[in-house]
Amino acid sequence: MSDIRVTVWNEYQDEQKREEVAKVYPNGLHVAIADFLNREGGIKAKCSVITDPDQGFGEEILDSTDVMVYWAHMLHHIVEDKFAQRLVDRVQRGMGIVFLHSAHRSKAFCRLLGTSGRLSWREAEERCRVWAVNPQHPIAAGVPLQFAIDCEEMYSEPFGIPNPDDTVFISWFQGGNVFRSGVTFHREFGKIFYFQPGHETYPNYFNKDIQRVIINAVKWAVPAVRIPDTECPNDTEPLEKLN
Amino acid sequence: MSDIRVTVWNEYQDEQKREEVAKVYPNGLHVAIADFLNREGGIKAKCSVITDPDQGFGEEILDSTDVMVYWAHMLHHIVEDKFAQRLVDRVQRGMGIVFLHSAHRSKAFCRLLGTSGRLSWREAEERCRVWAVNPQHPIAAGVPLQFAIDCEEMYSEPFGIPNPDDTVFISWFQGGNVFRSGVTFHREFGKIFYFQPGHETYPNYFNKDIQRVIINAVKWAVPAVRIPDTECPNDTEPLEKLN
Amino acid sequence: MSDIRVTVWNEYQDEQKREEVAKVYPNGLHVAIADFLNREGGIKAKCSVITDPDQGFGEEILDSTDVMVYWAHMLHHIVEDKFAQRLVDRVQRGMGIVFLHSAHRSKAFCRLLGTSGRLSWREAEERCRVWAVNPQHPIAAGVPLQFAIDCEEMYSEPFGIPNPDDTVFISWFQGGNVFRSGVTFHREFGKIFYFQPGHETYPNYFNKDIQRVIINAVKWAVPAVRIPDTECPNDTEPLEKLN
Amino acid sequence: MSDIRVTVWNEYQDEQKREEVAKVYPNGLHVAIADFLNREGGIKAKCSVITDPDQGFGEEILDSTDVMVYWAHMLHHIVEDKFAQRLVDRVQRGMGIVFLHSAHRSKAFCRLLGTSGRLSWREAEERCRVWAVNPQHPIAAGVPLQFAIDCEEMYSEPFGIPNPDDTVFISWFQGGNVFRSGVTFHREFGKIFYFQPGHETYPNYFNKDIQRVIINAVKWAVPAVRIPDTECPNDTEPLEKLN
Repeated sequence: MSDIRVTVWNEYQDEQKREEVAKVYPNGLHVAIADFLNREGGIKAKCSVITDPDQGFGEEILDSTDVMVYWAHMLHHIVEDKFAQRLVDRVQRGMGIVFLHSAHRSKAFCRLLGTSGRLSWREAEERCRVWAVNPQHPIAAGVPLQFAIDCEEMYSEPFGIPNPDDTVFISWFQGGNVFRSGVTFHREFGKIFYFQPGHETYPNYFNKDIQRVIINAVKWAVPAVRIPDTECPNDTEPLEKLN
Repeated sequence: MSDIRVTVWNEYQDEQKREEVAKVYPNGLHVAIADFLNREGGIKAKCSVITDPDQGFGEEILDSTDVMVYWAHMLHHIVEDKFAQRLVDRVQRGMGIVFLHSAHRSKAFCRLLGTSGRLSWREAEERCRVWAVNPQHPIAAGVPLQFAIDCEEMYSEPFGIPNPDDTVFISWFQGGNVFRSGVTFHREFGKIFYFQPGHETYPNYFNKDIQRVIINAVKWAVPAVRIPDTECPNDTEPLEKLN
Repeated sequence: MSDIRVTVWNEYQDEQKREEVAKVYPNGLHVAIADFLNREGGIKAKCSVITDPDQGFGEEILDSTDVMVYWAHMLHHIVEDKFAQRLVDRVQRGMGIVFLHSAHRSKAFCRLLGTSGRLSWREAEERCRVWAVNPQHPIAAGVPLQFAIDCEEMYSEPFGIPNPDDTVFISWFQGGNVFRSGVTFHREFGKIFYFQPGHETYPNYFNKDIQRVIINAVKWAVPAVRIPDTECPNDTEPLEKLN
Repeated sequence: MSDIRVTVWNEYQDEQKREEVAKVYPNGLHVAIADFLNREGGIKAKCSVITDPDQGFGEEILDSTDVMVYWAHMLHHIVEDKFAQRLVDRVQRGMGIVFLHSAHRSKAFCRLLGTSGRLSWREAEERCRVWAVNPQHPIAAGVPLQFAIDCEEMYSEPFGIPNPDDTVFISWFQGGNVFRSGVTFHREFGKIFYFQPGHETYPNYFNKDIQRVIINAVKWAVPAVRIPDTECPNDTEPLEKLN
């Protein structure tokens, strides 16, 4: 089997503009994520960022992407509609996509799931516990039934997602909140996973359990089939003779 | 309980331009649909069409709409993105929506469900049988376990929808095809029903069983709650004391 | 509309044998539950207990039950298989059922959901917070987005349930656990709701929010249709002429 | 990776008692099924039948079974409750199971899905067309979007199953019926697939597409994890300090 081709997309602005982020991710969140993916056998991860041509969503990039990992924060509105729609179209035709953390408010996430991405949140240096509610799911393989994260931004229910195909993880937050933090969907030929941990000021992408979840998700999201288009063909010839 | 306020939206072009459509629906499909809804007690249906101001999607219209019934065919691309997005936003905040027939390819349908609306089709004057696969669902109330439609445009699987909340109806077509013809979803506070029958050249909106399904769907889709916006509030105050 | 006929079933053993339970529910949990149901308009609740004839599951009782509310704790194995199966059969034919608290391990719950009812638990006088994750669901109507319960037995994920039709509530526990505490299912013609709060040593069935959830669940679970049997009829006559 | 260990279970009575069945499956349906599974690389299929010790469900057999393939017809009531419950327990703890054709009425199927297995049926030598409605699902890999079966027993909706995790196939029948003929579920750690084709008087288990579906299903149903029991542990130690 050939390597899974991953593109890690990132805004890559916080890391260049905010010291507390640069301290944690000096080369950018995308590089930290690509690094641990590349250390896993069978995955070949590259990166693209919002300042690249086509905002990092060039056709040639997507042509060579089996699974996109998408981290975004403040610039959702800057991503052009045509590129968000291009991602949606790619997913419908088979590309896998893993949305991380604040990507719940990205245009691509919202259009794929038909949601506003609504939730509530708090930055209070609080502890989070990630529970595997479907521990038999491949994305939970090798992950403890429960693991703690010392500091994470709090995301709270109600989270405006449609009923997931599977709810893999639910998170507990010290301040009294819960959140469906790991959920799967598919849209036509493409698989989608959303995973909550990963605030830019905490080193959570260096956490082995979080890395394991994302690696698992990338493997899970590899397309079985990709289709060239999503047209509606006219099947003029009935299979059965009509009267 | 006050009346359910319905807006039946239609392109209303086929009926004015094609004689075979005008013959069946001389006042437009929307009027035929609004008529049978208004004959049912407890529903007050109005109409809007694509040539109206704001393409029929004015804020004041949507403000007074509990459930929209949406029929569309050839002009999906003409509906402006901002109006499609307005519908999506309204559904997320609670408005119900019933998509009929070729509305599977409308922008609002595709954005709410994250689908291209892909299916295959055939116009061959063939018989269709609509089966209630979840006869206990309120949308199937008073509808036979199976009813036949003499002529309907064939729509075939694979239909590119996400896993429905409930599959209420599946249709059999004489030419050898099947189609999930009645499916429910919700997106945040709004309920969504798609129903396949209703090609513009057949008098199927005069069929009592089809009318019953649409009436039931309108009643089912009434919002329990409507919310003013879909912002992501900052819950700065933890419910529990942090360390 | 006629009154919803509810039967609240209870083992009614803890209350008679353990002082700390009798103090909270002197007449039994079932009576406390029936009381608040009967104070709501449109519901007529009766009770039956495990020491009644047919262990409280007599045919004449079930014939006059639209929705059963089921509380059980230690005597799951005492309920005879034939009565568990009778409940399963009644639900399949339309009777609604609301399983409370430790009923997750009752035979009827396990057979309807195909689960062992697996979870983990702790009795530690800890606080619980119930979050409405689908606040638009009718069972969440009139319930705050979040409410606290001072003391509740902790139930923790992983909870061995199938994917719910809807996850209405998820609970947060002070000790670090989460639990899908309010989940809906249907099995054929019958609706099922499971709700976690209600340990026998805490007065939680006197909590207004918990009462509201159970009242809503009873109303939601009323059968739309009831069927006389679940046989597999031989449809000897094809609808379409065979070659 | 080691071979997938499959046990094909069969009543094996029709083949010995009815000439029209013996003609098609002289060594039994189970042997025909095991044969094509064993021709596929990576699968090692054995057989057991109802006249074996423990009705073919001995603990040692199940200990060495990753996926059971279950064909049954007339003797559902003969299978002892304890063996049906043993299968349910094994599935909950991880064993995969593929139910074929009339196994929809077996005790194990009904207890895992909480259904009576209700459907309607007809033996009329009619044509059936199997449609892949989720062609990206691994069970549909290498299977045409649609394939015809010359003769199959008709099974019709409404089929009393819970909402499937995924509806992979829907069948069209010449006589005017439709049926959700390929559906997936999971119950705790075990995966379940039901597939409709396979009446005992037609040689449909020699059909390459049907064989492909069953081979795919066996591979899909292999447990990721198996657990030793389904007890409810008492987690006495909170993860977080209580007040």
